Amino acid sequence: MAAQEKVIPTIIVHGGAGNMRKHEQVLAEYLKGIKIAVKAGYQALCGGTGSALNAVEAAVSSMEDFHIFNTGRGSNLTVDGEIEMDGFIMEGKEFRTGAVTCVQHITNPVQLARMVMEKTDHICLAGPGANKFAKLMGVPEVSTESLIVERRRKMLEEKRSFNPDTYDTVGAVAIDADGNIACAMSTGGITAQMEGRVGDAPLIGCGGYCDNDYGGVSTTGDGEAIAKVTLARNIIFYMEQGLSAQAAAEKGLHYMENKIQSHPAQGGVIVLDKYGHIGMYMTTQGMSWAYIQKDQLHYGLLKGEEFVEKTDDSM
Amino acid sequence: MAAQEKVIPTIIVHGGAGNMRKHEQVLAEYLKGIKIAVKAGYQALCGGTGSALNAVEAAVSSMEDFHIFNTGRGSNLTVDGEIEMDGFIMEGKEFRTGAVTCVQHITNPVQLARMVMEKTDHICLAGPGANKFAKLMGVPEVSTESLIVERRRKMLEEKRSFNPDTYDTVGAVAIDADGNIACAMSTGGITAQMEGRVGDAPLIGCGGYCDNDYGGVSTTGDGEAIAKVTLARNIIFYMEQGLSAQAAAEKGLHYMENKIQSHPAQGGVIVLDKYGHIGMYMTTQGMSWAYIQKDQLHYGLLKGEEFVEKTDDSM
Repeated sequence: MAAQEKVIPTIIVHGGAGNMRKHEQVLAEYLKGIKIAVKAGYQALCGGTGSALNAVEAAVSSMEDFHIFNTGRGSNLTVDGEIEMDGFIMEGKEFRTGAVTCVQHITNPVQLARMVMEKTDHICLAGPGANKFAKLMGVPEVSTESLIVERRRKMLEEKRSFNPDTYDTVGAVAIDADGNIACAMSTGGITAQMEGRVGDAPLIGCGGYCDNDYGGVSTTGDGEAIAKVTLARNIIFYMEQGLSAQAAAEKGLHYMENKIQSHPAQGGVIVLDKYGHIGMYMTTQGMSWAYIQKDQLHYGLLKGEEFVEKTDDSM
Repeated sequence: MAAQEKVIPTIIVHGGAGNMRKHEQVLAEYLKGIKIAVKAGYQALCGGTGSALNAVEAAVSSMEDFHIFNTGRGSNLTVDGEIEMDGFIMEGKEFRTGAVTCVQHITNPVQLARMVMEKTDHICLAGPGANKFAKLMGVPEVSTESLIVERRRKMLEEKRSFNPDTYDTVGAVAIDADGNIACAMSTGGITAQMEGRVGDAPLIGCGGYCDNDYGGVSTTGDGEAIAKVTLARNIIFYMEQGLSAQAAAEKGLHYMENKIQSHPAQGGVIVLDKYGHIGMYMTTQGMSWAYIQKDQLHYGLLKGEEFVEKTDDSM
């Protein structure tokens, strides 16, 4: 029997996949935001009380706070000009999980999802019930206006309909030195969505899934197609059957494209196996992503693109 | 290569699994209701415009209308004495799916789920958004009072807390002569649940899943555990790997019991493969179930129990 391979503590994040017909300035902001998020996650992974759960919560919270990503401040607007967000978190040791959907008037859905996981017997709270719970937990209430950015308001004005080119769910997967794996997701949904629309992000096994025995996954892309094939769960299954994180990522996205004929069925995924090995793949033109492993920051945006930097000492 | 096996048009339904510490009169009502439901489903399966989708919708609607089942009239009450229901429907050819969660003031969540599938670009609507959509579709609004039955009100009064012995989601799976498979679910949740609680039923791959290439599944039991392992999707995976409907049903429930240590993690499942072969299994003491195949009605309640009747001509 082979000696036990050592776990490499790792965090990987994505800021959404899409066909990236965006201004260069917007693309630069995605890269800026994704690097801030992955560093925030890495700090929460490696400190004294660091854990995979803290890492994915910190990374996703950072993206919720950064204007360019489609969640928290910067969320897409519903058809009525409102903001309704989904959040999800899960850990792969005891399969604890929490989610919120259609939540309003808060800045960080992923943090509320963690409270659902830790403070209730339920796995998901929706709409006004989620907001009532937020109040009970003392989560500060903010105005819808404070969550809206001009770019998203314009998107609603210009379209008032689904734009298949923009998939902007954000997500993170992390593994800590103890081999605990966690994943988290957050999204403001799609432009001009109906009131009450639940996307793939809060549905366990669709947007995210993890199991300490195999690995963790976060997906982004055509949310309805992702849900129809339970994409994240599929990828863990492929790893259970012996595929590497990378091979499972590729197989998962190709399976979705083949199986769902009625949709674009494109997307991107980030995967970690139980040692911290990376899997990453996209069938869209681009996906903002970054990971930190052994003090090296890797990141990219367009398909095939990869930059590497040493993480700076200021972290 | 073996000749193509002929499809046997079949409908199978369940009315929830549990440990059945109930009065005999209540158990008799479960059997009465489940037989009415499976017959309603079979009629919708075999008529001129019959289809698997119509069959599962008819069977689940019948249980929503029958007082004993925990959905529609007869739903469990939330901690605030309200009624919030979940519904789900899916077909296995194009993977169309629709769901509603935390919906109020309607009699048939499964019918609204089908409208989400057929009339929107979304796969799930929650809470007030789901109710707004119901209004738009012309679904009659009913009072909460008209959905409450005395037995459920007492359950809330006596407990005001989660009762691990009662799992009452209802579901149906059908295959029609064309080999199309569909499944549907409906539930009033758990007694004293928080406002906004989303259970496993509306989460694709947890309560239900189907794929014409392999089969269809509906699950019932410890909903949080079912969600954590995406039980219905797992069972389809096992069938994809070559297991029979029955072997996949058993493997799925044992996997859940082993994997989720923090919960009772018990339940029951009904399964059809792509020819109409039956899989059924429970790790609870009982589950009300019935199926009709080749004009024979099979049904039962306690583990190991099976009654067979010829379906009457009055159908």
